[in-house]
Amino acid sequence: MHDTIIIKIGGGEGINLDHILDEFAELVRSGQRAILVHGGSHETNLIAERLGQPPRFITSPSGHTSRRTDRATLDIFNMVYCGKINKSIVEHLRAHNADAVGLSGIDAGIWRGTRKDAIRSVEDGLTTIIRDDLSGRVEDVNVVFLKLLLDTGHTPVLTPPAITHDGIAINVDADRAAAATAAALGAAELLLLSNVPGVLRDHTDPASLITSISADNLETARDAAKGRMKNKVLAAEEALTAGVPRVIIGSANGDHPIAAARNGAGTHFEGALA
Amino acid sequence: MHDTIIIKIGGGEGINLDHILDEFAELVRSGQRAILVHGGSHETNLIAERLGQPPRFITSPSGHTSRRTDRATLDIFNMVYCGKINKSIVEHLRAHNADAVGLSGIDAGIWRGTRKDAIRSVEDGLTTIIRDDLSGRVEDVNVVFLKLLLDTGHTPVLTPPAITHDGIAINVDADRAAAATAAALGAAELLLLSNVPGVLRDHTDPASLITSISADNLETARDAAKGRMKNKVLAAEEALTAGVPRVIIGSANGDHPIAAARNGAGTHFEGALA
Repeated sequence: MHDTIIIKIGGGEGINLDHILDEFAELVRSGQRAILVHGGSHETNLIAERLGQPPRFITSPSGHTSRRTDRATLDIFNMVYCGKINKSIVEHLRAHNADAVGLSGIDAGIWRGTRKDAIRSVEDGLTTIIRDDLSGRVEDVNVVFLKLLLDTGHTPVLTPPAITHDGIAINVDADRAAAATAAALGAAELLLLSNVPGVLRDHTDPASLITSISADNLETARDAAKGRMKNKVLAAEEALTAGVPRVIIGSANGDHPIAAARNGAGTHFEGALA
Repeated sequence: MHDTIIIKIGGGEGINLDHILDEFAELVRSGQRAILVHGGSHETNLIAERLGQPPRFITSPSGHTSRRTDRATLDIFNMVYCGKINKSIVEHLRAHNADAVGLSGIDAGIWRGTRKDAIRSVEDGLTTIIRDDLSGRVEDVNVVFLKLLLDTGHTPVLTPPAITHDGIAINVDADRAAAATAAALGAAELLLLSNVPGVLRDHTDPASLITSISADNLETARDAAKGRMKNKVLAAEEALTAGVPRVIIGSANGDHPIAAARNGAGTHFEGALA
């Protein structure tokens, strides 16, 4: 499976999705075994607002932010990630002759994991414990099912949520789910493409891009990462640790963002960590 | 494949979905090869209203009603059918140990068809022609892909939309898509279960249920069918014509609606038409 690449396209604002999908379809048509993973956070916020259920976020004591996911939020999450975005991506890819199959981590138990049983939330200096949040992390990937699809010429298009071993849907971070997928499949490359050019030394200055990070100086990346970039760096680290030889955090925009990232743009993580 | 049954659960108001899914999961656990097809019309109307894009319907000169599907409507349709409903069904089935995989007709080109290029619409006595509607009918079913899933122990959970050969998503009738699936797979049975008890001689009187219709008196059913029942009778006819030996139109409610229908409840269509 060292010929498989996993490309995750972020769900943030300002990504020209159609454009990068054209390039992805071309790659698939050229014979590349590939899995696309996508997010949908920005669109989910917009739809949640329109439905009169504005998104809420939890800030952990360490400053990490995540979406508060109760059952009503999960329904909206499913609508946008699995419905609107996933199906429009599959439609676009099929119109460009890629045999795409859109699935969530729930389907066939592709992404199985555990639900967090308690989340610390800091608000106005007060820390509370939230116990009913439907979020967690991917621990197992159904490699047999994904190989079945890849071996028969299909291109899986994957999106959260994942599912617990008991069968409860959980919101998981799509970057880390993509990393878990790359790790489980023994993929050759993991690309995390979004609306930022890569890991920045100073997150307010796009010119401060860190172009290359070796396995032994991951702390640099960890220290530099702010906000959503924290999860991407963590995802990169998880994939490298599991033996994925090449991880790139780069931009989903530009003329040929996938080729650009593979040819040196963005932040390249190289070398197994094991 | 004569051991496969196709069960379509309607998307109308008043269906206890969890209850029938429990029974369906039990059937799958007992070893039954099955495909579940579902609709979502009622829920789509509710969400469309909440999003400030109330549903519109087209009435044909023959009195047939269908959803007006422009691109914005298709997005909402995908959100509810492929996102909210499909994923909650798969979650429920997985929690009950059925290895469900939720897919739309777009994915892997499971339901391919053609788009209607012109629809006659009658409003206030005036007939107009609508040319940009994203609706059509299923002509081809990707049997190879569905068999791949069934042969590996999975239970496909299918929902509209379908996709054209050019890769454009189209709204299709879920009853007729279920019939096309049963026909293509050479299924043993097709069950169309919804919030009505079956085909009624007088649609205002539940006691006027037609319990059995043989292949040579389909006209009775066609004449009696009103509103959404027209499509169900058409679906039954299409499945029978294609050689499906048994089609049942029945209720999705009650204690064990699937067993009840298979044991005689509802309207039974018997005998190949060929």
